[in-house]
Amino acid sequence: MITQETKDIGLRGIPVADTKICDIDGEKGKLIYRGFGIDELAKYSTFEETVYLLLYEKLPTREDLEIFRHELASQRKLPTGIIRHLKKRKKSANPMDVLQSVIPMLADFDTEAGAGTKDAVIRQSLRLVSRMSTLVAYWDRIRKDLEIIKPDESLGHAANFLYMINAELPDEKTSKEFDICLILHAEHSFNASTFAARVVASTRAHMYACVGAALAALSGELHGGANTQVMKMLFEIDNIDNVEKWIGSKLDANELIMGMGHAVYKTMDPRAKILSQISENLAKRTGISKWYELSRSIETTVRQEFKTRKGKDIYPNVDFYSPSVYYLMGIDPDLFTSIFAVSRISGWCAHIIEEKFAQAQPKPALYRPEADYIGNYCGLEGCKYVSMEERN
Amino acid sequence: MITQETKDIGLRGIPVADTKICDIDGEKGKLIYRGFGIDELAKYSTFEETVYLLLYEKLPTREDLEIFRHELASQRKLPTGIIRHLKKRKKSANPMDVLQSVIPMLADFDTEAGAGTKDAVIRQSLRLVSRMSTLVAYWDRIRKDLEIIKPDESLGHAANFLYMINAELPDEKTSKEFDICLILHAEHSFNASTFAARVVASTRAHMYACVGAALAALSGELHGGANTQVMKMLFEIDNIDNVEKWIGSKLDANELIMGMGHAVYKTMDPRAKILSQISENLAKRTGISKWYELSRSIETTVRQEFKTRKGKDIYPNVDFYSPSVYYLMGIDPDLFTSIFAVSRISGWCAHIIEEKFAQAQPKPALYRPEADYIGNYCGLEGCKYVSMEERN
Repeated sequence: MITQETKDIGLRGIPVADTKICDIDGEKGKLIYRGFGIDELAKYSTFEETVYLLLYEKLPTREDLEIFRHELASQRKLPTGIIRHLKKRKKSANPMDVLQSVIPMLADFDTEAGAGTKDAVIRQSLRLVSRMSTLVAYWDRIRKDLEIIKPDESLGHAANFLYMINAELPDEKTSKEFDICLILHAEHSFNASTFAARVVASTRAHMYACVGAALAALSGELHGGANTQVMKMLFEIDNIDNVEKWIGSKLDANELIMGMGHAVYKTMDPRAKILSQISENLAKRTGISKWYELSRSIETTVRQEFKTRKGKDIYPNVDFYSPSVYYLMGIDPDLFTSIFAVSRISGWCAHIIEEKFAQAQPKPALYRPEADYIGNYCGLEGCKYVSMEERN
Repeated sequence: MITQETKDIGLRGIPVADTKICDIDGEKGKLIYRGFGIDELAKYSTFEETVYLLLYEKLPTREDLEIFRHELASQRKLPTGIIRHLKKRKKSANPMDVLQSVIPMLADFDTEAGAGTKDAVIRQSLRLVSRMSTLVAYWDRIRKDLEIIKPDESLGHAANFLYMINAELPDEKTSKEFDICLILHAEHSFNASTFAARVVASTRAHMYACVGAALAALSGELHGGANTQVMKMLFEIDNIDNVEKWIGSKLDANELIMGMGHAVYKTMDPRAKILSQISENLAKRTGISKWYELSRSIETTVRQEFKTRKGKDIYPNVDFYSPSVYYLMGIDPDLFTSIFAVSRISGWCAHIIEEKFAQAQPKPALYRPEADYIGNYCGLEGCKYVSMEERN
């Protein structure tokens, strides 16, 4: 039960459903998938196991996981019609536009796209999680006029992705760190992209339509587009000596600093803490410490400036340290938002399944909010339609 | 200010924004675009003028309208890259999947896709309204292995669409009636597809992403997919003698009757009234009265049965009479949802513009609702991650 104004707050604090997928304590900086804390999952789990957990609501046994890994790995190939399409596409196309248009195309190749049974939707989820990574990697190679690197079934999801992007096997530490990045981005409750997917699922649209809408929302710079914007900021500032001036001028102009602050966390984002550590590890291992150090300096400056100017605390979010990590892994900055999708597709699928099957049955209603009309008004019958001659 | 439970009601009755675009009085069956009643618009306006009204917030002068019509008509052509793509697409592809994938592809051809200024977004709106009709018509021809019919700039939007679909000029009455159909479907406040578009717009994603998400939501059978479902019902019932039995068995099984009932209208949907008249006109003019009469009989039976069984009134909505209309205009049933998009794209664009530019500045927040976590819970630190060996 709530008693409050609901307008123009982007539904913040307004519960729209029950969920068994994810819990966030924004005050204490805790994030939990299906009951398991993100710190534990980052430490002990793998992306594949986390996807299993999200889709099947429990940790797998060794046998379950083996079968699941095999299924995921064996479905990485894209239909040749899709590869042909990618090769015809304009090389300058934005990767998120490419994903948003190719995902609904996958429905063409799925004879059970419209089936709508839970089994069919879970099968679709596996295929989508598996293929999103191939799609992102293929597009990156194709747009650069490079040969595509076919997926290697013997590799885990994270290692295989880096292999398909860079055409060389990543070392074990880098694979593990990228795997942790995928775990950290897999799910985050009713964020804008997941909510968009659920709005679409509530109309009974198929899986591909729901994921297409989620991709659309993720592409926005206030959502998944933020990590690309953070890298742009790092390039622009370029040197620690420029940080104070650059940040100061942005804050003077009342602009957002991308990657800082979060709708839900009022303290440190638990994902940012882990990503910051990975960024530091990579800086040490590669000997390229510039991006990590620049990020640290920006974090410190923004936090101080916020304190001084607004008397408020602000913290880095998941998009703040991932750019310095991905960049050193050989990934292009304009692909960062797509990397988010490679992981978050698993959370979207879990939510679409929940929206379609786990709600009170029959599902109460599709999402259809109200708005208050404040426009032109002439009473219920409407304004008089004046003839052309009388208009001015 | 509201005081109520907000969960599992699909946000019904919860205002999320102010709007100047559309007002609906569900109790009295009134629908108003920018202050003008739908009855007046259907009677006096044209689709082009209605689009102008939606985008520019006022009726155009004669000169305004002339320029606007010309702009709309001159932008109907699709990039050849898109036509090539359509020709390569699987002929069995669902038209809504085709639209959902092609719209984000149009961003590849738009150098100002990411610009985000109001002028750019209005220019994109014009192009989208103009090209959606070409896209739907081209796909319909291509999937049937027919030559595409290039748009004719001298024709109005409605007549040109029917011409591109049927490869013959429609008569004046049919053109006018289809034009009215487009007016009636152009806008309907915060329905699921429009809301999806606004959720995506709130992340600052570009126009094409927003429209892609709207198409995804429209494809669901509880939303824009309903008109295709209604035609399926007409085919299944086939004869007035079968109506009572068919409806009875559906209601016994607690299934929805598509096209009947509405989230907002508690009385006759004002659009259904006009569409029913058009359906009757067409039946008379063509001499094919079967679909209109079948629709009438179903309406009467459902209303009686609802009264008897549940003591409640139910009314036809916008999707109930449009199928019998479109079918007699030569449009295939599985294209009906796309026809909805040909018109509603104008409302979506108006809402995306409003979401991006007309909200309190800086825009308060992207849409990010809450959910109540009711899943697996072991306290804030999360459940203990047990090793493989300990799982069962």
